Amino acid sequence: MALKKKPTTGMRDILPQEMEIREYVLSMIRQTYRSYGFTQIETPCVEHIENLTGGHGGENEKLIFKILKRGEKLKIDEAKEETDLVDGGLRFDLTVPLVRYYANNASELPAPFKAMQLGNVWRADRPQRGRFRQFMQCDIDVLGDSSNIAETELIMAMATLLDKLEFKDFTIRINDRRILKGIAKYSGFSEEQYDDVFIILDKMDKIGLDGVREELLSAGYPSDSVERFLSVFDAGDGDLEDGSSQAGSDAEISSENERGETGIGRLKNLAGILGDDLENGVADNLREIIDAASGASAEFKLVFDPTLVRGMSYYTGPIFEISMDEYGGSVGGGGRYDTMVGRFLGTEVPAVGFSIGFERIAMLLMERGYRVPGDCGKTAFLIEKKCTPDQVKDVIRRADELRKNGSVVTVDRMKKNKKFQKEQLAAAGYTQIEEVYAD
Amino acid sequence: MALKKKPTTGMRDILPQEMEIREYVLSMIRQTYRSYGFTQIETPCVEHIENLTGGHGGENEKLIFKILKRGEKLKIDEAKEETDLVDGGLRFDLTVPLVRYYANNASELPAPFKAMQLGNVWRADRPQRGRFRQFMQCDIDVLGDSSNIAETELIMAMATLLDKLEFKDFTIRINDRRILKGIAKYSGFSEEQYDDVFIILDKMDKIGLDGVREELLSAGYPSDSVERFLSVFDAGDGDLEDGSSQAGSDAEISSENERGETGIGRLKNLAGILGDDLENGVADNLREIIDAASGASAEFKLVFDPTLVRGMSYYTGPIFEISMDEYGGSVGGGGRYDTMVGRFLGTEVPAVGFSIGFERIAMLLMERGYRVPGDCGKTAFLIEKKCTPDQVKDVIRRADELRKNGSVVTVDRMKKNKKFQKEQLAAAGYTQIEEVYAD
Repeated sequence: MALKKKPTTGMRDILPQEMEIREYVLSMIRQTYRSYGFTQIETPCVEHIENLTGGHGGENEKLIFKILKRGEKLKIDEAKEETDLVDGGLRFDLTVPLVRYYANNASELPAPFKAMQLGNVWRADRPQRGRFRQFMQCDIDVLGDSSNIAETELIMAMATLLDKLEFKDFTIRINDRRILKGIAKYSGFSEEQYDDVFIILDKMDKIGLDGVREELLSAGYPSDSVERFLSVFDAGDGDLEDGSSQAGSDAEISSENERGETGIGRLKNLAGILGDDLENGVADNLREIIDAASGASAEFKLVFDPTLVRGMSYYTGPIFEISMDEYGGSVGGGGRYDTMVGRFLGTEVPAVGFSIGFERIAMLLMERGYRVPGDCGKTAFLIEKKCTPDQVKDVIRRADELRKNGSVVTVDRMKKNKKFQKEQLAAAGYTQIEEVYAD
Repeated sequence: MALKKKPTTGMRDILPQEMEIREYVLSMIRQTYRSYGFTQIETPCVEHIENLTGGHGGENEKLIFKILKRGEKLKIDEAKEETDLVDGGLRFDLTVPLVRYYANNASELPAPFKAMQLGNVWRADRPQRGRFRQFMQCDIDVLGDSSNIAETELIMAMATLLDKLEFKDFTIRINDRRILKGIAKYSGFSEEQYDDVFIILDKMDKIGLDGVREELLSAGYPSDSVERFLSVFDAGDGDLEDGSSQAGSDAEISSENERGETGIGRLKNLAGILGDDLENGVADNLREIIDAASGASAEFKLVFDPTLVRGMSYYTGPIFEISMDEYGGSVGGGGRYDTMVGRFLGTEVPAVGFSIGFERIAMLLMERGYRVPGDCGKTAFLIEKKCTPDQVKDVIRRADELRKNGSVVTVDRMKKNKKFQKEQLAAAGYTQIEEVYAD
């Protein structure tokens, strides 16, 4: 019977050439994160539907692929709504499963627990170019460490990774949820308004200061709050050269000059402006992270950016995001979420995580025609059909020897269209092609 | 809100220690199969429900995790049966998706196409010890090569893999569907009875010759057919020493003595007994495979076994299965399925594949306390809370240096229970632990 040839809507087949790049990126991720002490774990792709719809997935909860109950539990006649029909769903991220995993296995895990997860997630998003309904996520999380060593190591790990993948022009922007809250408080917004205000602020990149002003005003916020809010971003901007004389000693911002702009001057200015509206120690904490991570051997910019918001409302402290010159959007981000695990577990567990945009990174490498670093050599033997079994056996033994020495070797029957066959092999990187004819 | 802590029924969380072994096995699989010229591909985990229920999955089609339609397409009120509610399902193997993939992408794939797939599959089996509803499959398939080079290379690839994983006592049994058919024909069974007779024969391992006889008779088959059928297995057995004088020249069975028993003598006996009931060339083909694959540098037994059946009815030629002394059951198997792709595509595409029992192999390694081969060294820095930011920065730079030289390094806050923390680190393989105190 006929088969539907195309993959299901919004999903895709991955061809060998792309797969090679993806596997290479994954191997670099494993190797790099492992060198930072992260250990790989895995959760099932299917989660309890209750865990996926508990309110921690934001908009993603609307995009779940739900799994039908089986056997006697499925009662189609009595079913009134979706929840009557399903008992599971495909995970839409790796954070909810991580929290469940930690809750289930905490007694067998070290403290701090440094987890690495590489796995597919599914979202029934409207299909659009470059976005797929099944995609890889690669997360690292530190559970059980409240110190900023965790943030520093996360940032260094991802910077080292991108450096190994030969990305040169990337910037990690960093902010702190508590700074955002401090600014909102200083501006006179009420706490219920914070999240909404931040969502509008998040558009600064695209619509600029004037655009943000317009949206805040048309959302009905009082103009004095709006102006006070915007003045903070205005004031903190562009004064990096003389920032030291205004708000910090020369020693304290020494790292400003090591790798160019870090925004530490701006951070100090901002802390000065906010005064008591900013929680104690938040600015110092951020400065320490920027300063320590600047010591990495990987080359990257780490910059304080008070306009950085990050979508998920579960973040409680530092947040960060990577952007690349060659690609407009974000290629990864994360932050501290100290209350989320505790809400599930009953006991407080500080946590900070980072998710790299695996699909975007693989796509960027594909687009720039990236070649995965070297093989020892790829050899193809083409055996004419008339060859005797003993000749075949002899070739197979030689192939076996070459492989033992690290070569990739394929032993194939010679096709009638030998020229085309050899072209295909050359395209697949086979530099040595040996034709074997009957004696 | 409370979270369900356990994974969904029949699925499981994988802890770091097991994950390390699994990842090691996967890396060996990738490396070994790659050295044989296989290229990795990937299909979505979700397939069209029509493709999964087309009759090619045998019993597995009853075990599909089905995915609910979304949005307007879901009409719960009008639904009468499952098919009204679902449009997709989780794949239950990697063969059906491979065939769809090949049909979808054949024009962009080389010929022969040597595919490697490593991915999860799902089956809603009754939960039982050691069997899970989500598990990894690792398949290699050669599409577009009708010669027995494909079988030989598949067998050598899997033998090399097991050798690298330090399995020593494994046996690959090999048979051919056409030999089974020849025996059935010779015994007087009708073609419609073949599959049923083979299912009973498949139990030989467990119930012995007498058990098979009993089951065949109680299934109603005529006793003369049953006796003739069993006499073939009886006659071919245990005559390895003098097999040569009966049915083959000394030269032809020379490989018999290279690595001990290969069953080639038995194969020749059998061919003699079956005469015209055996398709021409089948015995020679099998002998060539055994002979050529015996040249592998990996140590293993490759033995002709006329009682080997393999479940799937889509096999058309040679079939093979790996067993290990330390584990009763099969740890992998495969065979040639020359008609399956053609039935989907319209054009004939010869194919042969092999699936290794990844979960069993990982389990066997876990049980024998396998340690993944060496790290350059694992170092942990424990930083006292009172340390200054500059001290932290200094440690982080040192860690960065060590990592560049290939070490795994973790930088952690020193916990109050330092002794326990150090024990956990030691258990995770950290041999160097350096404590850093405030100056």
